[in-house]
Amino acid sequence: MIITSLENNKIKKYLKLKNKKNRDEDKLFIVEGEHLVEEAIKNDLLFDLLVVENYECKIDFPYTIVSNSIMKKLSDMESIPKVIGIVKMKESNNTFGNHILILDDIQDPGNLGTIIRSSVAFNVTDIILGLGCVDLYNDKVIRSTQGLMFNINIVRCDIKELILDLKNKGYLILGTNVLDGEDVSTIVTSKYALVMGNEGNGVKTEIQELCDKNIYIEMNDNCESLNVGVATSIILYELNR
Amino acid sequence: MIITSLENNKIKKYLKLKNKKNRDEDKLFIVEGEHLVEEAIKNDLLFDLLVVENYECKIDFPYTIVSNSIMKKLSDMESIPKVIGIVKMKESNNTFGNHILILDDIQDPGNLGTIIRSSVAFNVTDIILGLGCVDLYNDKVIRSTQGLMFNINIVRCDIKELILDLKNKGYLILGTNVLDGEDVSTIVTSKYALVMGNEGNGVKTEIQELCDKNIYIEMNDNCESLNVGVATSIILYELNR
Repeated sequence: MIITSLENNKIKKYLKLKNKKNRDEDKLFIVEGEHLVEEAIKNDLLFDLLVVENYECKIDFPYTIVSNSIMKKLSDMESIPKVIGIVKMKESNNTFGNHILILDDIQDPGNLGTIIRSSVAFNVTDIILGLGCVDLYNDKVIRSTQGLMFNINIVRCDIKELILDLKNKGYLILGTNVLDGEDVSTIVTSKYALVMGNEGNGVKTEIQELCDKNIYIEMNDNCESLNVGVATSIILYELNR
Repeated sequence: MIITSLENNKIKKYLKLKNKKNRDEDKLFIVEGEHLVEEAIKNDLLFDLLVVENYECKIDFPYTIVSNSIMKKLSDMESIPKVIGIVKMKESNNTFGNHILILDDIQDPGNLGTIIRSSVAFNVTDIILGLGCVDLYNDKVIRSTQGLMFNINIVRCDIKELILDLKNKGYLILGTNVLDGEDVSTIVTSKYALVMGNEGNGVKTEIQELCDKNIYIEMNDNCESLNVGVATSIILYELNR
């Protein structure tokens, strides 16, 4: 049986997941394409699988066949995916490891996705999203993570209180400051929380004041700053060495 | 006098610059916002300046006032800019410095912009765009460079022939390979050409075969690869140390 009607109850429910409010209520979100669906299965988070009509799906999971036009409605991409997964949000864990990344007001979905990918690459244990960050379940964030959002603990909370708590627990709190920071290549620490700030404004002053050390990346004077995804990745790369 | 008509000859000409073919013919492109206009002026590349009605423009350059609706038509952004610059394409220089970055089929405009920004940061002298790369004058590329595209020599050409030529001139040709590369932190060279490949497929095999050394970035096994803008930036950061 193929679902062809947008009035189908299941489809109506899934279409609503394009809206953040509904995602948060149902604790479900949409991923597009086989790679992300496979990653969700690996992490035991796939809730439902939709496959477009006339496509031979080789994924080992019960699925529902839907018409091309329904797939198009569910998708945010220009080229319609063959499969779409409805995925359960991973539960956040409040017991943290020794390498924490704290993101203050990251706005661009591509930047957040890229940062999550690099965090897994460079052994970050937990990512904390400040309340002002873009939604983790935004379709562009999900695509930019390349499925690696399932491999890391991600928590959303008020970061100011959290930083105070982490200081008490012996984490070295690292901020960034291009004017009077220490060269990142000289920093050695086994237990850190790195705070990275908004694309335009950097880390808020009130947060910067909580940092134990400010670091910078040495670069040519013609360049004022790097893309925040790049800067975060270079710092994590250095801290991981 | 305020231009309010889309039929105005100047405006008609500038609207056509949204099209790559017309940009290439006229050797002009559009930049949005004061920061990019200022950067164009610094580099003596501003051709014309358009300012929206009822805005007090402090930029020291003769300008034309246009209506809000014309600004909206010219802009690719959601929030309409106060100023738009019509900018001359910088002439490419075929005498290269010692730090060359070669891009093979980079497709995402944000990635190209980010890579240009990092290239200036880490003292790349010349960027070579393969014929398959996204257009340099795409509005999203320009925004992502943060104006730094004016600070570096950028050439578009067939990269295979160029690499053969650079080999003869004593450049160390560096490619990337996650399977059998050398750790980037061990590479020391003062005269290199680094080749970075397409987002999905990496460097083409025929190009990889021309490389003297393949390098990789050490990372966690859970992560197959980094975003290409991030990977390029980390390698350039290391080569610059």
